[in-house]
Amino acid sequence: MAHKTDIEIAREAKKRPIQEIGAKLGIGPEDLLPYGHDKAKISQSFIDSVQDRPKGKLILVTAINPTPAGEGKTTTTVGLGDGLNRIGRKAAICIREASLGPNFGMKGGAAGGGYAQVVPMEDMNLHFTGDFHAITSAHNLLSAMIDNHIYWGNELDIDQRRIVWRRVMDMNDRALRDIVTSLGGVANGFPGQGGFDITVASEVMAILCLASGLEDLQRRLGDMIVAYRRDRTPVYCRDIKADGAMTVLLRDAMQPNLVQTLENNPAFVHGGPFANIAHGCNSVTATTTALRCADYVVTEAGFGADLGAEKFMNIKCRKAGIAPDAVVVVATCRAMKMNGGVAKEDLGTENVEAIRKGCPNLGRHIANVKGFGVPVVVAINHFVTDTEAEVQAVKDYVAEQGAEAILCKHWAQGGAGIEDLARKVADLADSGSANFAPLYPDAMGLFEKIETVAKRIYHADEVIADKSIRDQLRQWEEQGYGNLPVCMAKTQYSFSTDPNLRGAPTGHTVPIREVRLSAGAGFVVVICGQIMTMPGLPRVPSAEAIRLNGCGLVEGLF
Amino acid sequence: MAHKTDIEIAREAKKRPIQEIGAKLGIGPEDLLPYGHDKAKISQSFIDSVQDRPKGKLILVTAINPTPAGEGKTTTTVGLGDGLNRIGRKAAICIREASLGPNFGMKGGAAGGGYAQVVPMEDMNLHFTGDFHAITSAHNLLSAMIDNHIYWGNELDIDQRRIVWRRVMDMNDRALRDIVTSLGGVANGFPGQGGFDITVASEVMAILCLASGLEDLQRRLGDMIVAYRRDRTPVYCRDIKADGAMTVLLRDAMQPNLVQTLENNPAFVHGGPFANIAHGCNSVTATTTALRCADYVVTEAGFGADLGAEKFMNIKCRKAGIAPDAVVVVATCRAMKMNGGVAKEDLGTENVEAIRKGCPNLGRHIANVKGFGVPVVVAINHFVTDTEAEVQAVKDYVAEQGAEAILCKHWAQGGAGIEDLARKVADLADSGSANFAPLYPDAMGLFEKIETVAKRIYHADEVIADKSIRDQLRQWEEQGYGNLPVCMAKTQYSFSTDPNLRGAPTGHTVPIREVRLSAGAGFVVVICGQIMTMPGLPRVPSAEAIRLNGCGLVEGLF
Repeated sequence: MAHKTDIEIAREAKKRPIQEIGAKLGIGPEDLLPYGHDKAKISQSFIDSVQDRPKGKLILVTAINPTPAGEGKTTTTVGLGDGLNRIGRKAAICIREASLGPNFGMKGGAAGGGYAQVVPMEDMNLHFTGDFHAITSAHNLLSAMIDNHIYWGNELDIDQRRIVWRRVMDMNDRALRDIVTSLGGVANGFPGQGGFDITVASEVMAILCLASGLEDLQRRLGDMIVAYRRDRTPVYCRDIKADGAMTVLLRDAMQPNLVQTLENNPAFVHGGPFANIAHGCNSVTATTTALRCADYVVTEAGFGADLGAEKFMNIKCRKAGIAPDAVVVVATCRAMKMNGGVAKEDLGTENVEAIRKGCPNLGRHIANVKGFGVPVVVAINHFVTDTEAEVQAVKDYVAEQGAEAILCKHWAQGGAGIEDLARKVADLADSGSANFAPLYPDAMGLFEKIETVAKRIYHADEVIADKSIRDQLRQWEEQGYGNLPVCMAKTQYSFSTDPNLRGAPTGHTVPIREVRLSAGAGFVVVICGQIMTMPGLPRVPSAEAIRLNGCGLVEGLF
Repeated sequence: MAHKTDIEIAREAKKRPIQEIGAKLGIGPEDLLPYGHDKAKISQSFIDSVQDRPKGKLILVTAINPTPAGEGKTTTTVGLGDGLNRIGRKAAICIREASLGPNFGMKGGAAGGGYAQVVPMEDMNLHFTGDFHAITSAHNLLSAMIDNHIYWGNELDIDQRRIVWRRVMDMNDRALRDIVTSLGGVANGFPGQGGFDITVASEVMAILCLASGLEDLQRRLGDMIVAYRRDRTPVYCRDIKADGAMTVLLRDAMQPNLVQTLENNPAFVHGGPFANIAHGCNSVTATTTALRCADYVVTEAGFGADLGAEKFMNIKCRKAGIAPDAVVVVATCRAMKMNGGVAKEDLGTENVEAIRKGCPNLGRHIANVKGFGVPVVVAINHFVTDTEAEVQAVKDYVAEQGAEAILCKHWAQGGAGIEDLARKVADLADSGSANFAPLYPDAMGLFEKIETVAKRIYHADEVIADKSIRDQLRQWEEQGYGNLPVCMAKTQYSFSTDPNLRGAPTGHTVPIREVRLSAGAGFVVVICGQIMTMPGLPRVPSAEAIRLNGCGLVEGLF
C-alpha cells in the first residue's frame, strides 16, 4: 500500500456528497452552505441552535518537538477520528486550514498523509472556502482606514510613528516585510514606514479563531490596538470605526467548514493562526460546534506540546470554557532516534540505544501534559523502517513514565490501523479521570506567567528581560490587561530557545526579545528569539512546477 | 412601488434554488458547483460540452455618456433580460462582478435597481465566489516571484529599474500607490520602487475575461511582460515560470458564476476589468457559454458607448469571434437635460428645450454604434419625474436619427415594464439586419488605430503625442504587437478628454499621455488624461456605517 503518494491516494478517494457527511452529525442540507459538492459551511443558525446540547468528549492530539524526521500529528488526528468511527463511536475531527502562500514556496501541506487524509486536498491548499481571503480583506480595510483617517486630518491625533497595525497578504513576499508607503506627493498621504505580514499572522485570524460568535467577533475587533498617540494612549480599531465593516467581511468566514476524511467521516477545517505569535489552534466555533454534534472530537494544536498543547490549554481552553478529556502525544521511532543524536541519513538503521537516549524529549511532554490534569496516551506513528525492538524501546520507556504507548498504522491502513489507540482514547475520555486546570490563574502577573511557562513547561532556570520589557508588562497590567494569558513565540524545535538543543534540556535561560499586546485576541505575545512573520520564497519555489496537467488536475502542489 | 429602496426590494426577493435557475438553461445540478444555495459556478466540463451548439442572439446594452443624473445601464440590462423572458423568449443576462474595495468608500453598487436587480446583492458586493481574490493571489504570486528571482541572483538579468509589474489589492488604499519595497537589510532583497493598483486594474483580470479557456489563459499569462533588461528586451511572466501556478490559482475563477434576477431568470456574473485601462466587459467565457444555452443574451459594457461599446466591438467581439445582433442605447430624460445644461438640483422641473439641446450626445452614440453595422434601439429609462412632453422630445429626436426610442418602466415594474423594448429588440436581433465589422482592421498601424477611434468615435480633429510615444508604438509594431487593438483610457464623462465638455463636442484634440502594452490581454492601452488605478477612501468612508444589524443583515453597504 505504501508505494502510492499522498496525492494519488487522495485522488482515488470515494468522496460522498457533503450533505451525507453533514447528515452523520445531524446537520440538515438547509444548514449546509455548499462550496462545490465536497465542501460546505455550517450555517450560523445551526450553530446557534445547538448551544444547549450536551458536549461530547474532547481529545487533543499533540506531539514531541518536531524534527526533520516528521512525527505525523495531523495524520494521527485524522486517523484517530477514522479509528473512533470504525469502532462504532460517533467522532469528528477539527483541524486548521492551510495558508495559501507557503504552498508556492515549498511543496504544499497535505491534510494528513497516506490513508489518513482529509479531502479535497487541492482545494484545501488553495483558496478553500475563501476564509483567509476574507481575513486579508478585513485586515487591510483597517489599514486603509487608518491611513485615510490621518490623510483627512487625523482627528484622533494618531502619532504616525506609532502605528502598530501593519498590512497582510497570504503570499511569501519578503520584499513587503519592510516598506515605505504614501510616496508620490500630497494625494497619496504622508510617507511612513510599514510592512506586510503573512495573513495567518494577523490578529484578525487569532480573533476569528477565539471569538464565540459574531458579536464577540466585533467586540474583539474593536478592542484591537492599531496605534498610539504622543501621550502613549492607545487608539483602537473601534475609534477608526472599522469594526462593523470588518465583521461584515468576516461573516461567512466565521462559519466552520465541513469536509471529509478518506473514510467519509466528518472533518471540521476552520481557521489557522500562527502557532508562535498566536495560539495555533483551529477555531473555537468549529470545536464547540463539533462537540455538540459528535460524541468524540479529535483536534490538534500546532508544533510540539511545549508550544501547541500549552497554548491549547492556557489560551483556547481557558477562553472557550472547554477542556480536553484525553491527550494523545504523537511520537515516531525515527524522531526519537534523531533526538538521540542520529543524523537524518542514518534513520533507516536500527538503533535502540539512540531511541533510549532520545526518549526523554517524549517523557517531558508526557509529564507536562499530565501537569494540566489530563490523562495521556502516546501514539507511535509507525514507519515501515521501524523495527520491533525500536518500537518496544519506546513502549518500555513510556510505561516507565506511567503511561501507555500504542503502535498505530493508520498511515498505511487508515482507521483499521489505529483501532487500538481509538479504544484506549475512548476509554480514557469516558473514564472521567480528567481534571483539567490551566497552568496559571488569570490573576497572576504577566512576568510571573511567563516564568511559570518557562520553568514548568520548558524546564528553564530563568527568564531574562530588559527593564523596558518588564516596564511594558507592568504598564499593561496597570491598563487592565494583566489578566490575559501569555502567548509564547519561541522555536518549535527545542524546549529551549536554541533550535539545536534536542532532547530534554535543563539549565537554560529564556531571553525575551519583545512583547506585544494582542488586545483583541486577548493575549500578550512574548517573543523569544527571531520570529519571521513574512516568509520568503526559496531559490526554486515550488510555484515553478505547479500547473494543470492535461486532465485538469493540479501537478506540483504536493 | 417606488418608495422601497433597492436593498429592501432585494431582501424581499423570492429566490429559487440555483439548481432551478440552471435547469432553465439546461445546466444539470452536477454541472453547477454551488456556493451557498443561491450562487453557483458552471463546470468546465459543461462549458466544454456546449462548444458545438448553435449560438443565440447577442444584445449589447450601452449608454450615453454618464452624468450625475444616472442612466441605469445595468438596470436596463437586467430589466430587458426579464422582459424577454416575460414575452416567452429564453434569455439570459451577462454582467460584470463588482469590486469589493470601492464599496467601503462610497455606498456600494447594487446589481441593477428597483425591480430590475440581480440577487444575492450583498454577496455580489462582498466576496461573491472569490474570483477577485483569486486574481489578487495570482497577480501577487507573480510579483513575489519576480523579486525572488532577483533576490537569488537575477539569472534573467532583469533591469531592476524597469520592472513594470506592480502588485494589486481589492481595496481603496492610496498609501500603497507609490511605495519603496525591500527595506530592512540583506534578507529582504534589493530596495526598489513599487506600488499597488486595485485588483480590477490587473492585466490578469483582463486576461481572465478574454481567455477562451484554461490553455489560452495560461498562454496569455505567460505572454505578459513583467520587466525589461538593460537592452530593453522584455522579460515575460513565462520566463519567471509563474504562468502554471497562476493558472492553478485561477482555475475555479475561470468558471462563470450563475445567479438570478428578482424574476428568477438566469444571470451570468463573471469578471470585471476596468473600463479605461482595460476593456470593461464581463468574461468571454460567460458570454459564449450563455449564447449556447439561451436564445437571447443581454450584456452590457462599461461607461458610455464611446468607451464601452467601442471596446466591446473592437476588443471583445474581435477577440472572441462574436458579434452583437442588436444594440440598446440607454438614455434618460434627466441625463438629456443635464447634457442640455441643466444643473442637478433643477432636474425635477420640466424642460423640453434642454432635452432638445442635450440630445445630440445621444445622437452621436446612435450614429457611432450604427457605424459598426448593427441595428440600434434607444431605451428611455423612465424616472417618476419625467413628463410626457420630455419623453416625446427624446422620441422625436431619436426618430430623426432613423432609430426608435422606447419608454421603459422596468425600474418600477420589472419585466412587465419593458415588454415593448423586449419585443423590439427580439425583432431586431431576429431580423438578421446586423452586419457587424470592427472599426479598423488588425493590420492598421497602432497610431492610425488611435486616430481612427478618436476621429470616428470621439469626433476629434487630431491626436497629439510626443515623439517618444510614437517611437514606442513603432517599436511594438516591430516586435510583432502591431496587430493588437487599442484600448483607450480617457474620461467617461465626455466624448472629448475634458470631463466637463458635455453634449457632442467637435474640434477637440486627444492628447496621449502614455501608452502601455498589455501583451497577455492583447491590447495597447492608450492613456489620455489622468487615470487613477488605485482609488482612495473619502473623508467619511461608507465602511464606517457598514455593520451587521440585529438580524444578521448587512446595513450601510447600499
